[in-house]
Amino acid sequence: MALPVALDAMGGDYAPAVPAEAAVQAARRHQLPLLLVGPEPAVRAELAKHDTAGLEIEVVHAPEVIAMDEHPASAVRQKPHSSIAVGMRLVKEGRAAAFVSAGNTGAMVAAGLLELGRARGVDRPALGIVFPTLRGKTLLLDVGATPDAKPEHLAQFGLMGSLYLERVFRVASPRVGLISIGEEEGKGNLLVQQAAQRLRALPLNYVGNVEGKDIPAGTVDVAVCDGFVGNVLLKFAEGLAAAISGIIREELQRNWWSKLLAAGLLPAFRRARTRMDYAEYGGAPLLGLRGLAIVAHGRSSAYALQNALRVAREAAGQDVPRLIAEGLAERSSEM
Amino acid sequence: MALPVALDAMGGDYAPAVPAEAAVQAARRHQLPLLLVGPEPAVRAELAKHDTAGLEIEVVHAPEVIAMDEHPASAVRQKPHSSIAVGMRLVKEGRAAAFVSAGNTGAMVAAGLLELGRARGVDRPALGIVFPTLRGKTLLLDVGATPDAKPEHLAQFGLMGSLYLERVFRVASPRVGLISIGEEEGKGNLLVQQAAQRLRALPLNYVGNVEGKDIPAGTVDVAVCDGFVGNVLLKFAEGLAAAISGIIREELQRNWWSKLLAAGLLPAFRRARTRMDYAEYGGAPLLGLRGLAIVAHGRSSAYALQNALRVAREAAGQDVPRLIAEGLAERSSEM
Repeated sequence: MALPVALDAMGGDYAPAVPAEAAVQAARRHQLPLLLVGPEPAVRAELAKHDTAGLEIEVVHAPEVIAMDEHPASAVRQKPHSSIAVGMRLVKEGRAAAFVSAGNTGAMVAAGLLELGRARGVDRPALGIVFPTLRGKTLLLDVGATPDAKPEHLAQFGLMGSLYLERVFRVASPRVGLISIGEEEGKGNLLVQQAAQRLRALPLNYVGNVEGKDIPAGTVDVAVCDGFVGNVLLKFAEGLAAAISGIIREELQRNWWSKLLAAGLLPAFRRARTRMDYAEYGGAPLLGLRGLAIVAHGRSSAYALQNALRVAREAAGQDVPRLIAEGLAERSSEM
Repeated sequence: MALPVALDAMGGDYAPAVPAEAAVQAARRHQLPLLLVGPEPAVRAELAKHDTAGLEIEVVHAPEVIAMDEHPASAVRQKPHSSIAVGMRLVKEGRAAAFVSAGNTGAMVAAGLLELGRARGVDRPALGIVFPTLRGKTLLLDVGATPDAKPEHLAQFGLMGSLYLERVFRVASPRVGLISIGEEEGKGNLLVQQAAQRLRALPLNYVGNVEGKDIPAGTVDVAVCDGFVGNVLLKFAEGLAAAISGIIREELQRNWWSKLLAAGLLPAFRRARTRMDYAEYGGAPLLGLRGLAIVAHGRSSAYALQNALRVAREAAGQDVPRLIAEGLAERSSEM
């Protein structure tokens, strides 16, 4: 029997209702065995609202909950029985193939480092976001696990991202770009200039510097940056998409005539929104640990969480953490 | 008589036609005396296409041109008679109140440092972009002049941006935010944590950390970051706006019915686009030099350049460079 995937029942803005719903749907549609992690009475009460007959969903008791706004490192230290810590331990102990949570991202990183530890050859973990673009998807990493990265960390992120896309999304020879200011070699800040040298030396399809505009354009498959830049970009993208939608909406509502026309276009606007919503793309892998963890957006719908569970099973099946450790160990001399 | 503003006739993707047109319009509509800088025969030929009777437009000969894709520092060194270098010297020599160019941004920074030099109390210059938001505008700085900034530079950027908005855009007590990853104090990378301490000590309306999403939301009037982060954000915003428009357009073109409805909404979409187009907002001031220089977007229209000329006159009238030098000199002990 395949190892189950663990899901944080208490993670995200709509927990435990949405995680429970996602678990039921994923177990049914994808025949996925699942461990649902959280305070047992609350989780069972939530599951009781669904028809779970014949589904492989097991509840794993975790009495503590880390809130979205808690300080990550201290919350993880003070709550060893939180659903996030217990979920990570399930992976460590070989009881789960992967752990998925829509909870506190910082706590996921802290608990991942504490419970799973870094993979051999990895100095710092990276959180990757599958970002929707005009032509397909781009994996942007790191978006927040390592805000103060060194050149060798950025090079490792490039390698981890490339391996992840190759194995999980079946992208052949992913194009890896380094986010900088200007495409010419030698442009950028000191960190990026030194990281570029290391990336060039790696056995990667490294295409050099890319600019901010290349991410939404889909110029590369993997876009590498430090966790500070990536997190600012990610939040900026959310804000900008909301602002652009807001401005378009205001202009469309200016008179009865355009209101009427716009109403007829609602399905088209909805399709556009779905294409732009990275929450739908299966969550953000936390790469570089001795085990697989996936962070879903705090506002994830049940559908988005299902996608994350599906991706988690896929990545676990490909044994991504081992591949990354091996890939980095082999090439560590080159970095 | 008021000092004229100098305009680079050779700057931007549509030079010299668009700068010449902008000069004629600005001279007529705003009664602005202007110096148009570039190779005299080409500039005169362009001006001859317009009715310039009674307008105060003087041509200043600058035989060399720096292309958009030239390496900034070496181009400025190798072409001392470029329109960019000559324009900066006009400001230095007191013959122009300010210099506006839609040319090579890096060359503007390099020529500004070489010809004008840094203002007293300023360690590094900053390029600010007036970014359109849901509620008004936010000055984002630095967007590329100083990619490797130290904490004290970020603090100076906050002060320069605050003074600029106060004097030129008449914003009372501008709210200054520091771009970071998480709003809580102490979040961010090392650079930002140290810059936050310095900003708190300054006589500013400093509101603390802001996240990427706060820029398009318009939470603050001045958003401070290093030139690497700012430039990546700026290019990312351009790319994302293009990608979002592209995705919406694709979805609206999917069938004849929505094509028809969308055609009726073109005026609304155009209004939305104009509101989002920061090229219309008067150019990016290059702050921290002994003289005023404004960088306009390379794709600036004649209307956008006119706005930049108007803003340049306004800022020059307020003597922004002197204010910044005084403001920084007074507070240098606090940084």
